[in-house]
Amino acid sequence: MRILIINGPNLDLLGIREPHIYGSRTFEECLGELRASFPDTSIGYAQSNVEGEIVGLLRARAAEVDAFILNAGGYSHTSVAIRDTIAVLDKPVVEVHISNIHGREEFRHNTITGGVCAGVITGFGLAGYHMAVAYLLRSV
Amino acid sequence: MRILIINGPNLDLLGIREPHIYGSRTFEECLGELRASFPDTSIGYAQSNVEGEIVGLLRARAAEVDAFILNAGGYSHTSVAIRDTIAVLDKPVVEVHISNIHGREEFRHNTITGGVCAGVITGFGLAGYHMAVAYLLRSV
Amino acid sequence: MRILIINGPNLDLLGIREPHIYGSRTFEECLGELRASFPDTSIGYAQSNVEGEIVGLLRARAAEVDAFILNAGGYSHTSVAIRDTIAVLDKPVVEVHISNIHGREEFRHNTITGGVCAGVITGFGLAGYHMAVAYLLRSV
Amino acid sequence: MRILIINGPNLDLLGIREPHIYGSRTFEECLGELRASFPDTSIGYAQSNVEGEIVGLLRARAAEVDAFILNAGGYSHTSVAIRDTIAVLDKPVVEVHISNIHGREEFRHNTITGGVCAGVITGFGLAGYHMAVAYLLRSV
Amino acid sequence: MRILIINGPNLDLLGIREPHIYGSRTFEECLGELRASFPDTSIGYAQSNVEGEIVGLLRARAAEVDAFILNAGGYSHTSVAIRDTIAVLDKPVVEVHISNIHGREEFRHNTITGGVCAGVITGFGLAGYHMAVAYLLRSV
Amino acid sequence: MRILIINGPNLDLLGIREPHIYGSRTFEECLGELRASFPDTSIGYAQSNVEGEIVGLLRARAAEVDAFILNAGGYSHTSVAIRDTIAVLDKPVVEVHISNIHGREEFRHNTITGGVCAGVITGFGLAGYHMAVAYLLRSV
Amino acid sequence: MRILIINGPNLDLLGIREPHIYGSRTFEECLGELRASFPDTSIGYAQSNVEGEIVGLLRARAAEVDAFILNAGGYSHTSVAIRDTIAVLDKPVVEVHISNIHGREEFRHNTITGGVCAGVITGFGLAGYHMAVAYLLRSV
Amino acid sequence: MRILIINGPNLDLLGIREPHIYGSRTFEECLGELRASFPDTSIGYAQSNVEGEIVGLLRARAAEVDAFILNAGGYSHTSVAIRDTIAVLDKPVVEVHISNIHGREEFRHNTITGGVCAGVITGFGLAGYHMAVAYLLRSV
Amino acid sequence: MRILIINGPNLDLLGIREPHIYGSRTFEECLGELRASFPDTSIGYAQSNVEGEIVGLLRARAAEVDAFILNAGGYSHTSVAIRDTIAVLDKPVVEVHISNIHGREEFRHNTITGGVCAGVITGFGLAGYHMAVAYLLRSV
Amino acid sequence: MRILIINGPNLDLLGIREPHIYGSRTFEECLGELRASFPDTSIGYAQSNVEGEIVGLLRARAAEVDAFILNAGGYSHTSVAIRDTIAVLDKPVVEVHISNIHGREEFRHNTITGGVCAGVITGFGLAGYHMAVAYLLRSV
Amino acid sequence: MRILIINGPNLDLLGIREPHIYGSRTFEECLGELRASFPDTSIGYAQSNVEGEIVGLLRARAAEVDAFILNAGGYSHTSVAIRDTIAVLDKPVVEVHISNIHGREEFRHNTITGGVCAGVITGFGLAGYHMAVAYLLRSV
Amino acid sequence: MRILIINGPNLDLLGIREPHIYGSRTFEECLGELRASFPDTSIGYAQSNVEGEIVGLLRARAAEVDAFILNAGGYSHTSVAIRDTIAVLDKPVVEVHISNIHGREEFRHNTITGGVCAGVITGFGLAGYHMAVAYLLRSV
Repeated sequence: MRILIINGPNLDLLGIREPHIYGSRTFEECLGELRASFPDTSIGYAQSNVEGEIVGLLRARAAEVDAFILNAGGYSHTSVAIRDTIAVLDKPVVEVHISNIHGREEFRHNTITGGVCAGVITGFGLAGYHMAVAYLLRSV
Repeated sequence: MRILIINGPNLDLLGIREPHIYGSRTFEECLGELRASFPDTSIGYAQSNVEGEIVGLLRARAAEVDAFILNAGGYSHTSVAIRDTIAVLDKPVVEVHISNIHGREEFRHNTITGGVCAGVITGFGLAGYHMAVAYLLRSV
Repeated sequence: MRILIINGPNLDLLGIREPHIYGSRTFEECLGELRASFPDTSIGYAQSNVEGEIVGLLRARAAEVDAFILNAGGYSHTSVAIRDTIAVLDKPVVEVHISNIHGREEFRHNTITGGVCAGVITGFGLAGYHMAVAYLLRSV
Repeated sequence: MRILIINGPNLDLLGIREPHIYGSRTFEECLGELRASFPDTSIGYAQSNVEGEIVGLLRARAAEVDAFILNAGGYSHTSVAIRDTIAVLDKPVVEVHISNIHGREEFRHNTITGGVCAGVITGFGLAGYHMAVAYLLRSV
Repeated sequence: MRILIINGPNLDLLGIREPHIYGSRTFEECLGELRASFPDTSIGYAQSNVEGEIVGLLRARAAEVDAFILNAGGYSHTSVAIRDTIAVLDKPVVEVHISNIHGREEFRHNTITGGVCAGVITGFGLAGYHMAVAYLLRSV
Repeated sequence: MRILIINGPNLDLLGIREPHIYGSRTFEECLGELRASFPDTSIGYAQSNVEGEIVGLLRARAAEVDAFILNAGGYSHTSVAIRDTIAVLDKPVVEVHISNIHGREEFRHNTITGGVCAGVITGFGLAGYHMAVAYLLRSV
Repeated sequence: MRILIINGPNLDLLGIREPHIYGSRTFEECLGELRASFPDTSIGYAQSNVEGEIVGLLRARAAEVDAFILNAGGYSHTSVAIRDTIAVLDKPVVEVHISNIHGREEFRHNTITGGVCAGVITGFGLAGYHMAVAYLLRSV
Repeated sequence: MRILIINGPNLDLLGIREPHIYGSRTFEECLGELRASFPDTSIGYAQSNVEGEIVGLLRARAAEVDAFILNAGGYSHTSVAIRDTIAVLDKPVVEVHISNIHGREEFRHNTITGGVCAGVITGFGLAGYHMAVAYLLRSV
Repeated sequence: MRILIINGPNLDLLGIREPHIYGSRTFEECLGELRASFPDTSIGYAQSNVEGEIVGLLRARAAEVDAFILNAGGYSHTSVAIRDTIAVLDKPVVEVHISNIHGREEFRHNTITGGVCAGVITGFGLAGYHMAVAYLLRSV
Repeated sequence: MRILIINGPNLDLLGIREPHIYGSRTFEECLGELRASFPDTSIGYAQSNVEGEIVGLLRARAAEVDAFILNAGGYSHTSVAIRDTIAVLDKPVVEVHISNIHGREEFRHNTITGGVCAGVITGFGLAGYHMAVAYLLRSV
Repeated sequence: MRILIINGPNLDLLGIREPHIYGSRTFEECLGELRASFPDTSIGYAQSNVEGEIVGLLRARAAEVDAFILNAGGYSHTSVAIRDTIAVLDKPVVEVHISNIHGREEFRHNTITGGVCAGVITGFGLAGYHMAVAYLLRSV
Repeated sequence: MRILIINGPNLDLLGIREPHIYGSRTFEECLGELRASFPDTSIGYAQSNVEGEIVGLLRARAAEVDAFILNAGGYSHTSVAIRDTIAVLDKPVVEVHISNIHGREEFRHNTITGGVCAGVITGFGLAGYHMAVAYLLRSV
């Protein structure tokens, strides 16, 4: 199975800042660990700070992968454009949030993009990516 | 590790009704499968239709378990009482929703109880319980 | 035809208190009268103050009856759990309110449970139960 | 007893369009059936697409009838003018909706006119008119 | 000066019903009194229950009068159409409400039509018409 | 092709008042020009200030025409009745607004009637009618 | 009859600033004119910029006057304290606004104080005071 | 005087958890102290996690007591059912909250049940129960 | 212990007006009774109709007293200024409302000032002051 | 005349996916057809998934074209930045939506960008572009 | 240049309380420093806890100064009266907030008074006053 | 001190368009003037129309500068992504708006990004940048 993880803004800071909120491991550690845990799975990775580039990544890479794991960061709460893109893909998208969006400011409670994903995993820190891969391997 | 799964109203209907929404396996199948997948884990199960009984279960069983998996069904969107109970427990609670709450009616988008849980898994069908157990084993 | 009437909190006070709002007959008088008016119909009755017990009654008794008449009282305006239960039953549910919910406080104007019922009868006092039985006999 | 049924816009289409929503009988069939079912009752009928004509009908005909059955269609959700008229009549008005307003778009959930009626019957198709007449005969 | 008073629905009931709210004089008495008080003023009168007819009256009669006094009743709170008509007239319109709209239900607090009138007089009973005529005579 | 244009309140004032908002040509000029531009098309015209008459026109004329062009003026923002009528017609309706509703007061931003039309053209002045006819000729 | 006019902040600027909004006469001219027009009426005058002083004026002067005319300016839209004071007075209070509050910013549309006054006169410039005195002389 | 204290969910945790919010004494200590302070008063106690059981306790015990002290915890903010029950009791109910509901999350600011109680005491910790008993002894 | 009671607008009317809402004793009777009940406590009293004077009283008198009892009347629902003042005092403030704010108009349900007080007592009439003193004596 | 069409995210999928919503022709077919229909018009085309690039395109190309046709897709409902750009251009912008935004989810009903465009065409599928070009040729 | 600084409630506490929020210097230190920094500028100072006195200060002192610096504290978020006063002054007013209003409670995010000021400086502690003076010297 | 100014969309138009709103100097003039006024300060400049590029600039340049001045234009009101980036930077960010956001459309009143900045300067035209630099030099 080929999975592409797409991260939005600021997720490269994981493990460095605010570990009480975002967990104490870096995303690079997480990525290495993910690939070690799932040796038979191709786990690609892309990051962009730009809403429209995330739209483009989802569109451009859909032919080459079997599924996406998407953490669009702050764009999850505002982006109709990413939502529309997910809705027309024929590959499943799992949305991951490091922190628990339901326990933070009210403007983070809802996820516009998550409503058209296969599902949403929120609050488990970097373990959320592991859960997403495991789900995709078992279910897709 | 000892985990107690607590389900709220109507979750015993899984696999029987509306499989396009809730997936095609029954909760009993799921539970057997969970126990088989995690043979070293004690996975207890309780179900109640009554909001206050879920409060009571969380309180009464907290001493005997290491973590809870909670699917409070419709109470997730309205229950301040369950939220307050989770907030005072010293055991982690993982909230699971079978269907994707962000893709259904607006009154299901927010989860009052989820904001004080460790995290929320929503939309992956019964696989959500598997993800929750796996998370707890790895992280708690 | 077998019909089960389920009443929520405080409906046993009918006829005793606030007759200018709720009508001057007791529910017991109403029940006797209903059974006399529809001698060929089996009209069962259950009452509970507990939201989750109403969920349980709907689920447990669905196999034995042809239809429900439900007056969930205050729970009608808040209970996602009862709504979800009605939505998965394969028996029709008629919602009855003694007083006219549209003419009272704004938090009573909408009925969360009523939206998934066959229909809603509101404001006709205890006659609403008679109308519900008559409807079910004619139409189901 | 003399009853006047007043229908608002589009109710003459009943039985022809969208039978999955509005039921499969025409209003004319319903009217004939009503008069046959209640042979001792004078059941008049008026229809208007115009909000203000419904105001006028209620006012002009109040002296000749004992009660009204009103289905103001889309005006039920917006008309302060009809509400004010009902409030000053000394004849009871029963509001009927063919479809279940609580199960449709949110702007149909509330009924401005219904709050000052004797009661509201919603969701039972054309049977709602039958229920209204039966109620009026028994209770007024 | 030529003034046309246009009343909307139910204002012919003044003096008959709910005198504690609407005052104890009829509109006819008021009209006679107005004409007697302002003998040099031509005070016309029109009444309609129909929103669009009020639109039409404003348009059709604008050429013959110097000013309008408008009490659109329940339409004041909902009618964009009447508002648009007033906005394009080149004759002043004084809005009158018999009862104090700010002291009744919240949906009566705002007046959509009043925002484009010369001014609004609310709560003085039928005396409001007298005040409107006196204002127009002094100021227009 | 037979098209009926239905205009709501105040549209006969076009070209006379507020040309900075509504354009500088009258509707009559527009109508003549339309018929000249589309000589093979029968373009009927009706105007009413009355919401319910617009309902009636849509219903009564649906059998004789192939499509409607509707500019309901202020009723577009409030009329559930006209919306319901459009929804049951089997002829396409194109909604036209002279001014750009999205650039005026907030209560004009949404169009209740437009949501069930084939489409909405807003802001192009009287040219909107030309665009609507051209669309209907090409697409219906 | 003894009337006390109480003005809130900035009303002494009338006639000097923004005559297109507030009219071109000063309040002093108005006051002189009022007293000349109603020679048999005692028309007192008080002005304060302080919300609580307006409360105090209403309370302290109620015994000496027969009625109040109140233009509380910006406090009309926010002051529960003045509202509560008016509600306990046994003298009628007429609220006057120079400009038409319904045609200005949305936060001026409602008047908290006006809901417990005898009535509200808004939009007629300084003539509003004249209308208020005339009303009080005729009706109180 | 006979008083029944009814506590809702989680109040048995008082003194154990979050003393910075809920005070440092347990409810048992409070109860003993209350009975010692008011030796001539019969102070009963009941606790339930179940909304409907609180409804039932109020109803069932009303005949035996002179007043209730109710701390419904999280149900205070959501329960129409408990509100309706309090409204029909002929015994006074004093609502107590340990923490200051006006200083916590916005969904705790309002109390649905408190609006029909004799009064509400909020923020004084367990002393609130003492204040409630003292009030009832003095005033009922 | 030295306590200062600060009352806002209209509280000197207690016992005179609206005894069904505010109780039948005057504030002076209450004050005498309070001092008699707590002879070892110095109970000062200040009253002001002016929001900013209440701010000033709290600031100026904080050094001389051990606690405040504040009934800011209508200012409780609107005054950010008084709230900010209470928040910076190092003396406890108990807020008292004579009537039950949760049972009156919706704009009285929340108390902006109460959220930063030690606690709020609402609905017990003048007894609320007694409860406040008793609390302060026992707890501060 | 030189026109530049700017499309936002996902519009290259037209004709491929969801033809029941977006029509059955591809945008490339539309573009060819447009150029064939208007041989004397220079119709440029640009597409970007990036909100800020659309801002840049509008700014950079304004000097070379006479008008824009803009379909910003999901950005239409959220982008203050594009709105501000359109507002400072001295070239007209016509907004086109393929689907009828008023008939879809509520968050699509309003268009932030459309309020400062010349006008908006919504719901006519790819024909909307044809209508936009025709309008620009006739009117600019 | 003559500048008058007007401070609202509690600003004399600066430097004493909550230095983590409001900075560690007192307003007196700030004022001395300001005058030292701008020796050629006359910097007056006034403070009031009373909303209406701030209105009065702005009005009374406008003739003697070239500009105002206003920190109305809590009144900034609620005072229509101060807003109206600023709007009619012909002297520029710069609004200063010590703390960042956009980062505190939601009811502090908007400033009613600031919308009619020359500009708003928020979050820079006492340095905000320095910035305001520097701006006025350079720009007015 | 090294400062980087980051401007969002359309700020290069300053001085050219709408000088009544945005001031009459261009940003280039402002930048030259700033550097001349603060010769010992390194003042860098970057501009981007792309939300995500602003995120990237803040992240990439944080190591090389001591502070940022940010005018994100329209993104200030919508961008959770930029807000999250500012929140994790360890360099102060001063937000500047040319026009007074509190005096324009309501959707510009709040600034999502400003709530996590050191402070916000709004309404002073290009002088705002000067104020920001002066603040940073004095305070950081």
